[in-house]
Amino acid sequence: MIDPTERKGHPDLSLPEAEKRGVYHAIYTRRDIRREFLPDPVPEEVLIRLLKAAHHAPSVGFMQPWNFILIENPAVRQELKRVVDKERKAAAIVFESPRSEKFLSLKVEAILDAPVLIGVTIDPAREGPFVLGRLSDPDTDVYSASCAIMNLWLAARAEGIGMGWVTIFRREDVQGILNLPYHVKPIGLLCLGYVREFPQRPMLETEEWAYRQPLSKHVFVDGWGRQEGPFWDSISKDLDKKDVWPWER
Amino acid sequence: MIDPTERKGHPDLSLPEAEKRGVYHAIYTRRDIRREFLPDPVPEEVLIRLLKAAHHAPSVGFMQPWNFILIENPAVRQELKRVVDKERKAAAIVFESPRSEKFLSLKVEAILDAPVLIGVTIDPAREGPFVLGRLSDPDTDVYSASCAIMNLWLAARAEGIGMGWVTIFRREDVQGILNLPYHVKPIGLLCLGYVREFPQRPMLETEEWAYRQPLSKHVFVDGWGRQEGPFWDSISKDLDKKDVWPWER
Repeated sequence: MIDPTERKGHPDLSLPEAEKRGVYHAIYTRRDIRREFLPDPVPEEVLIRLLKAAHHAPSVGFMQPWNFILIENPAVRQELKRVVDKERKAAAIVFESPRSEKFLSLKVEAILDAPVLIGVTIDPAREGPFVLGRLSDPDTDVYSASCAIMNLWLAARAEGIGMGWVTIFRREDVQGILNLPYHVKPIGLLCLGYVREFPQRPMLETEEWAYRQPLSKHVFVDGWGRQEGPFWDSISKDLDKKDVWPWER
Repeated sequence: MIDPTERKGHPDLSLPEAEKRGVYHAIYTRRDIRREFLPDPVPEEVLIRLLKAAHHAPSVGFMQPWNFILIENPAVRQELKRVVDKERKAAAIVFESPRSEKFLSLKVEAILDAPVLIGVTIDPAREGPFVLGRLSDPDTDVYSASCAIMNLWLAARAEGIGMGWVTIFRREDVQGILNLPYHVKPIGLLCLGYVREFPQRPMLETEEWAYRQPLSKHVFVDGWGRQEGPFWDSISKDLDKKDVWPWER
């Protein structure tokens, strides 16, 4: 199997240049879209590509704990909108003034506007009680389902489709509406559809709610808070440097 | 802002064809790599690209709860290897025979072999107690950090770099070794490096431990378990169809 001519240096398994750029392009220009979805329907073959991309996510012990519930019935959608609205109002009270008013002024979901609405759930009991890699950390099913959503999101961006991941709801409310077994956890309502633009900056930044932190704050070497030594000196200087990508020229 | 000529049909914001293909290429050929890392070092500029890709993941309320701890000190690496090994042995006992022997025969981590080792952590206290979108579901910080790891993983695949996400450890052990505050949760030890190949199928499938499930089992319409109606009939027939992608020809 091992070609001795390859022993020096590694074989180049990187994607072709344009494909590689595409991965970064999707990562950098993906946005959490909450408004201005266009009414144009998403073709079924595109929706299926997105679901397949999600299904090809990694999962702990290959347990594939996810389910995707496509919302077709407008009455179900209305019910979801109602409980999200309820939770939004409750959250506003918790935030207190002036954060409360600011929060209520934000459009945080597009449950009714997005042509496609998908409820994503986790079944922690899938594949039985002892899943490889999950014994020491039961949250690993959550990691897996989140990865599936991330895959779906990047595929959507590649297709020119915007997505917003809504988590403003009570688990029990969504369980009731979607008829979920009690042990199945809804982790998101995904709003999807074509958009007129992918904004340059995250909405929460434009709205001055929160800001992108310098990456250098979040990188350590060998232990929490450790930012010293030759390796740190060498790597840290470029962590916050803005790359110039073709799509930003 | 709205160009009236665009009112009919949506503007095409999909990525250029090759870039779009790149996103799917990375998603479909990414593997959880646990063995046969090549010793070739990962250049610092590539490592930085991967960390930046992770940092551009979505996060709930833009809280960016992640930290990346680059392991440079061989003694720290040895310590991590020791606690992962301990947990692996404990897991084998829980699995019971014959699953136990099979599990022990699998190579489930490359802590010592991978040129790059990164501990990823979640700080649930980041950005204060009330983070937008997190009030109803405190696990949303876990979703965010998982998305960061997924971004990093796909960027790595694009760069020809293999990655394995190791979760076989006790939180308290890794907290001790990496000097984490008690509230900070380690969610993975990422083993990264160049590889000779990305296997066609997941290792757990090749090893007959677990199998990819048909996607159609995991898609419902309007509620748990509901697989009926014209929309279901139309969409379900293609959910399990294998796509022919250029890299599979």
